[in-house]
Amino acid sequence: TPSDREGHSGTQSSHRLLAYSDALISIIATVMILPVAHTKVEDNEELRQSVQVLLTTKIAVYLMTFLIVTVAWAAHIRLFQVIVRIDDCLALLNLACMMLITFLPYTFSLMATFPEHVLGILLFCGCVMVMGVIQSLIVLYAFSRPFLLNEQIQISENQAFYKQHILKVIMRVPIMCLFASIFSFIFFQLSYVLLAIVIFLPYISQGLKWCRNKAIGQVEETPDSMLFYTYLPNEPLTKERVEAFSDGVYAIVATLLILDICEDNVPDPAVVQKQFGGSLIAALQSYGPEYLAYFGSFATVGLLWFVHHSLFLHVTKTTRFMGLLNTLSLAFVGGLPLAYQLTHEFPRNSRNELEAIQISCVIIFFAGIFQLTIWVVALYNEQETLHPYVRYGGREHVFMLAKLALYPCVALGTFFLTCILSKFSASIFHLMEITVPFAFLVLRLLVRVGLALLRLIFCPDRSEPKTA
Amino acid sequence: TPSDREGHSGTQSSHRLLAYSDALISIIATVMILPVAHTKVEDNEELRQSVQVLLTTKIAVYLMTFLIVTVAWAAHIRLFQVIVRIDDCLALLNLACMMLITFLPYTFSLMATFPEHVLGILLFCGCVMVMGVIQSLIVLYAFSRPFLLNEQIQISENQAFYKQHILKVIMRVPIMCLFASIFSFIFFQLSYVLLAIVIFLPYISQGLKWCRNKAIGQVEETPDSMLFYTYLPNEPLTKERVEAFSDGVYAIVATLLILDICEDNVPDPAVVQKQFGGSLIAALQSYGPEYLAYFGSFATVGLLWFVHHSLFLHVTKTTRFMGLLNTLSLAFVGGLPLAYQLTHEFPRNSRNELEAIQISCVIIFFAGIFQLTIWVVALYNEQETLHPYVRYGGREHVFMLAKLALYPCVALGTFFLTCILSKFSASIFHLMEITVPFAFLVLRLLVRVGLALLRLIFCPDRSEPKTA
Repeated sequence: TPSDREGHSGTQSSHRLLAYSDALISIIATVMILPVAHTKVEDNEELRQSVQVLLTTKIAVYLMTFLIVTVAWAAHIRLFQVIVRIDDCLALLNLACMMLITFLPYTFSLMATFPEHVLGILLFCGCVMVMGVIQSLIVLYAFSRPFLLNEQIQISENQAFYKQHILKVIMRVPIMCLFASIFSFIFFQLSYVLLAIVIFLPYISQGLKWCRNKAIGQVEETPDSMLFYTYLPNEPLTKERVEAFSDGVYAIVATLLILDICEDNVPDPAVVQKQFGGSLIAALQSYGPEYLAYFGSFATVGLLWFVHHSLFLHVTKTTRFMGLLNTLSLAFVGGLPLAYQLTHEFPRNSRNELEAIQISCVIIFFAGIFQLTIWVVALYNEQETLHPYVRYGGREHVFMLAKLALYPCVALGTFFLTCILSKFSASIFHLMEITVPFAFLVLRLLVRVGLALLRLIFCPDRSEPKTA
Repeated sequence: TPSDREGHSGTQSSHRLLAYSDALISIIATVMILPVAHTKVEDNEELRQSVQVLLTTKIAVYLMTFLIVTVAWAAHIRLFQVIVRIDDCLALLNLACMMLITFLPYTFSLMATFPEHVLGILLFCGCVMVMGVIQSLIVLYAFSRPFLLNEQIQISENQAFYKQHILKVIMRVPIMCLFASIFSFIFFQLSYVLLAIVIFLPYISQGLKWCRNKAIGQVEETPDSMLFYTYLPNEPLTKERVEAFSDGVYAIVATLLILDICEDNVPDPAVVQKQFGGSLIAALQSYGPEYLAYFGSFATVGLLWFVHHSLFLHVTKTTRFMGLLNTLSLAFVGGLPLAYQLTHEFPRNSRNELEAIQISCVIIFFAGIFQLTIWVVALYNEQETLHPYVRYGGREHVFMLAKLALYPCVALGTFFLTCILSKFSASIFHLMEITVPFAFLVLRLLVRVGLALLRLIFCPDRSEPKTA
């Protein structure tokens, strides 16, 4: 058992602390979708304009929050790649840090609602600064008890160098926030620029560096021992944590609609008596579309999870870049239940309904295509990041491609079909919802048949199947 | 890596599927707390009576749903203790099963709102029956591919016997539900009796058997190989899954209030302009109590998680009975944020405020005392279930006791203090909220001092510390 291995009294494996943190962070990342979900879209043309502006703001807030929270999450992963064992004190400090992370979405949504007001910026920067202090405390505490650290650092001779490097990286963000909060009193636009730099700079600078290296062909290999706190796109992210975070997001998103249904769609007995003459079935019939939306979105999110699960089963190492793609995929997944809900809210064959269906298709397409991109990126460096089965020529390679490509292809197909046959868009969409789960069930068979057909067409002389 | 060990093409470790299922089930178990949370409690005496009735119904629905969902969860654990590897087909069947489990709370709340209507019973029974069919399919599928099974069954000679036994146990519940749904047309009260029997019978019969055996002193040892599907209180429950489920519940509960805050407490710019003369700070001040409630409940839930984490770090085997106690503890934890929210909703020093504070104390007390009971139950059979450190005489024994007893003691103390000094109840409660985290930080020190003092008082001649 793991507790047998504890060398020092009171030190513990950090596994469960990290799982709990991942659960908390995944909830918080998806929470800003709720204000979007509960914005009522009216068919009224006059109100439509203002509702659309409101909706766009809220969607922007959702996407930005998702990004910011995942940045905080990546920092958390990085910290606990260095600190691999914990004790009670670290666990409590981590909980304090989590409390601040869960407060971030609220400060961010204040910033978005009152962009010219200094309070939102100050609250946001305050949270980030306190988090920076707590993280530094965690680092100082852990380095004062080296048995808590990662083995590589534990045996290394220049521990002091590591400590300074990590502290420097951690403190960079809070210091930028300090400047942002000072500037907010003088010239608040500058604060936003500073905050944007904080979040995007690592990505941009690393992206540029990567492009330049690719263009020149020069490859700067950083030794593995230095892969802490580098912001390089191939810096490893603990795979278990990427999975745990994704599981959390998929689970919340899959149940978003049932949460609403449980709360809002239990009719009042008095209303049933009055309006429906006591017939519960009649009363519930008006909720029919909501149930449909729930089952549809649960199935789609569940199947996207299934694809994700199949992919990560064969991924052996997750990098920062793959993590970013995963985040983008998850951000789209988060919007799925709402899109599904919208498809049923408008009168049949109205333009709104068609738009809602097409938006759903677009969201599914992007959620799926980013998953596919993760695999493509992994294939670039397949020796390190992929299991032999799914590498080029591996026996599951084609099957994995089919799994990952199924949703994007179906979504694209549905999108164009609804463009052409806009009258039957709802029926096409429902048909898609129903067939896809069965397509996944018989996918292995379909792939075999497809491969056999291809072989028959292109190389009819070789009748022996080889890769299937 | 785990995928290296895959013997058959397409079989996978079930770890992540189970983690995802645990996340889904923990969300669903806590979801019925939301209707309770959003019932507005007015200070108006006339309305109070009807609101209290409504609230009591909703709380009962919450507790019953929690119980039913955890029963479904226990059945799921049991199933996947037999099936330890999965393939795509099982993963998809499991997702279908999850979809039905997530729908249970809604059918149950229909039953509670319209107890005399047949539809709720039918929907509930329908879900359970379909789930039974899917579970049987899973069992049949797994037994037709024995490499998916647990090793013990895989090498056993009477696989057919196991299969029949498991199918019999699984089908018992759907068959009872079939009868319940038939009776609902004739005499619906009988259906409820049947459903209650379905849920409680295993507990009652096993409880009676256990008591009898204890009284007579006769110990019927069931061999370990037969510990599948027995309903014995010492039947093992996978420890990782108990932890994952608890983590999910703690994470949802800790963030319940911030979900509400993010959605409801971002003021409308127009309102701020009109009512508060453009002062955002003034507008946010009215939300002050909500922020306080959030931080208070997050800290309390976080610390209860911390205690749970410390306990399960030293638990080596989880039994069904410990799982039941854990469920009860979690059910109380689920009510905590609401109790905290209520403490701030009433005017200061009103009777309602006092009641709300006392309810919070009672909830904390029960959540903590059930955690303590888990440990006490584990101590009964300490050779099997506990790590040597925390057994009687182990070096962490006293420290663990202090950790587990801290919250119940503090809650009890606060409760009685507020009874005596009812005028200062709010201040006492806030003081408690602030001191407890620090008490946890210095607990090791406190325990040492306490032990030294005890030694000084009772055995002043032995000055050498022994157990500390």
